[in-house]
Amino acid sequence: MPTVHRVFNFAAGPAVMPVPVLERIQRDLLALPGVGMSILEISHRSTIFEAILAEAEADLRTVGGIPDNYRVLFVQGGASQQFSMVPMNLLAAGSTADYIDTGSWAVKAMHEARKVGVVHVAATTERDRYARIPRHEELTLTPGAAYVHMTSNNTIEGTEWRALPAVGDAPLVSDASSDIFSRPVEVARHALIYAGAQKNLGPAGVTLVIIRDDLVARAAARKATLPTMMNYATFAESRSLYNTPPVFAVYAVGLVMKWLIAEGGLRAIDAANARKAAKLYAEIDRTGFYRGTAHADSRSRMNVTFRLATAELEERFVAESTAAGLDGLQGHRAVGGMRASLYNAFPEAGVDALVAFMGEFERRHG
Amino acid sequence: MPTVHRVFNFAAGPAVMPVPVLERIQRDLLALPGVGMSILEISHRSTIFEAILAEAEADLRTVGGIPDNYRVLFVQGGASQQFSMVPMNLLAAGSTADYIDTGSWAVKAMHEARKVGVVHVAATTERDRYARIPRHEELTLTPGAAYVHMTSNNTIEGTEWRALPAVGDAPLVSDASSDIFSRPVEVARHALIYAGAQKNLGPAGVTLVIIRDDLVARAAARKATLPTMMNYATFAESRSLYNTPPVFAVYAVGLVMKWLIAEGGLRAIDAANARKAAKLYAEIDRTGFYRGTAHADSRSRMNVTFRLATAELEERFVAESTAAGLDGLQGHRAVGGMRASLYNAFPEAGVDALVAFMGEFERRHG
Repeated sequence: MPTVHRVFNFAAGPAVMPVPVLERIQRDLLALPGVGMSILEISHRSTIFEAILAEAEADLRTVGGIPDNYRVLFVQGGASQQFSMVPMNLLAAGSTADYIDTGSWAVKAMHEARKVGVVHVAATTERDRYARIPRHEELTLTPGAAYVHMTSNNTIEGTEWRALPAVGDAPLVSDASSDIFSRPVEVARHALIYAGAQKNLGPAGVTLVIIRDDLVARAAARKATLPTMMNYATFAESRSLYNTPPVFAVYAVGLVMKWLIAEGGLRAIDAANARKAAKLYAEIDRTGFYRGTAHADSRSRMNVTFRLATAELEERFVAESTAAGLDGLQGHRAVGGMRASLYNAFPEAGVDALVAFMGEFERRHG
Repeated sequence: MPTVHRVFNFAAGPAVMPVPVLERIQRDLLALPGVGMSILEISHRSTIFEAILAEAEADLRTVGGIPDNYRVLFVQGGASQQFSMVPMNLLAAGSTADYIDTGSWAVKAMHEARKVGVVHVAATTERDRYARIPRHEELTLTPGAAYVHMTSNNTIEGTEWRALPAVGDAPLVSDASSDIFSRPVEVARHALIYAGAQKNLGPAGVTLVIIRDDLVARAAARKATLPTMMNYATFAESRSLYNTPPVFAVYAVGLVMKWLIAEGGLRAIDAANARKAAKLYAEIDRTGFYRGTAHADSRSRMNVTFRLATAELEERFVAESTAAGLDGLQGHRAVGGMRASLYNAFPEAGVDALVAFMGEFERRHG
């Protein structure tokens, strides 16, 4: 196999994958060992795929320390479909769902929930342009809320929760799409965690849902009215095999979990992510030529957002960094600026390259 | 690259893919040419992916002869999610949807539609154990129906419509998951066609929806209440880029379309499919040792279902054929017997091998 030219990919998702995972997928693409068929061709009812699915689930449970009273589901449609599934399954008539508004994705989640029932905004940092996570004392929780919804990491605004909010007995639902498994997870403090795979878990095309048994029971009571494919109970009862799942994406997630285990699991990846983010924020803070957009206590380790003094300098930064093999540094179109996404599979060498480029760019344009 | 051992894969879906497509995916798995990133890593907002998506759509339009007043959408969730999306988007309060009941999948589609509104069974062949497609004179259509729903090919029962039903002005909605693009399609006689990719279009993980503009308009009127991800207008207005699409599956579908065009398009594949199915049905009919389950005028060219005299013989047939490298011939668990799925990418050499095996099996056990 000839050497392949690869750039450093700072995209916010879909995002960089571990190279050993890509190599394994490539090796077996025409036929899984001993099977004689590609992963793209095997029946989802075959014993081969059942084993792949079971192993992916077992490895997710190992990595995340997922307790036995939680189901692990493979759903489609991304977090955007979860924005609807959560209230359709969990928000009963006459009850209220609390949403913590930390940015663009939280707003979309609330928009879908309002189609289903009553939403209370338990806190919002909109007035601070979402540059920070709310302080715990800012939360106004509804007694007996159906659930409390949070977004653990905000890809567009570059903020991340350092510690989970205290929500008492209310079921905590977290959109963890962009920082799941980047550090140890307190699964038992959640009632439901969902995450599109395409940042830390694998390629686009599958959504991980970790859901506590009592919430599955709530969903099961709605079978007569909810669309079958929008009901968590459908996936829980069939072990995600009610209909044809996204076979390839599940397989790839399984391989990423093997890689994560080999890397030392969540404690090791937590340390690596801390190191990568610290290096980049140190460069941002070094002279004032760059300016981080998030408040210091709310900075995301996954999506590092920063600006330069002028739009012209920012355009030049994007053009020159792309030419230097540092791809995807343009910020989200809604907010502009720069964004470096440093998910689990992003190599530290890429951070070093970016830091070196930033220093050089400052010397040339500072 | 060493030679890879591959079996003949008769699975009903996910199913066999064209080998040149698998080889192309494999070649570029670590980095698309000139891009420096894997297809599994590229942003769905990148110009690279926008080009891949646009080309896949253009090739689908070329292959299917899809008129300009139809949108081509890439959705997730499979046909099972379409069972709900169709009535949620198109079945208004006070109107009736006509369903033609030709088997297990039609029953599931009706089950979801009844959660939304009024369903009229326009015809059913349940009393004949779904062994045939209804005759046109059996249809009792509702004047002014919201739509008429059909299943163009029935994977479990091995039946297929030879000609479209005459439904007058009613919008015809077809679940074409298992025979789409196996022959020329009269798109303009449909209002909506949907198909999970995992039979004739590519790997599992994406659903093709071909929808006429006036139906998109009906869907758009429901934005305030329908879940965004369940609304056809969301996909039509964003060109399937409202949220992260299943990037890899869309890419693979695009490659399969390139292959189909190179093979000569739908007329050529139609002829090949006719030849493959005729060979197998001829062997089934040769002596009476095998018995086709579908009526002669309703036989599917995609899923050839047949039985042997006893359950014991059938078990033996499955075991021996699997051992001979003919994989996936066991019928659906709901009906038993044997099923040979002969989708577009299934090689004629595989049919020849099966026919030879059947003759030999009959000599040994007949």
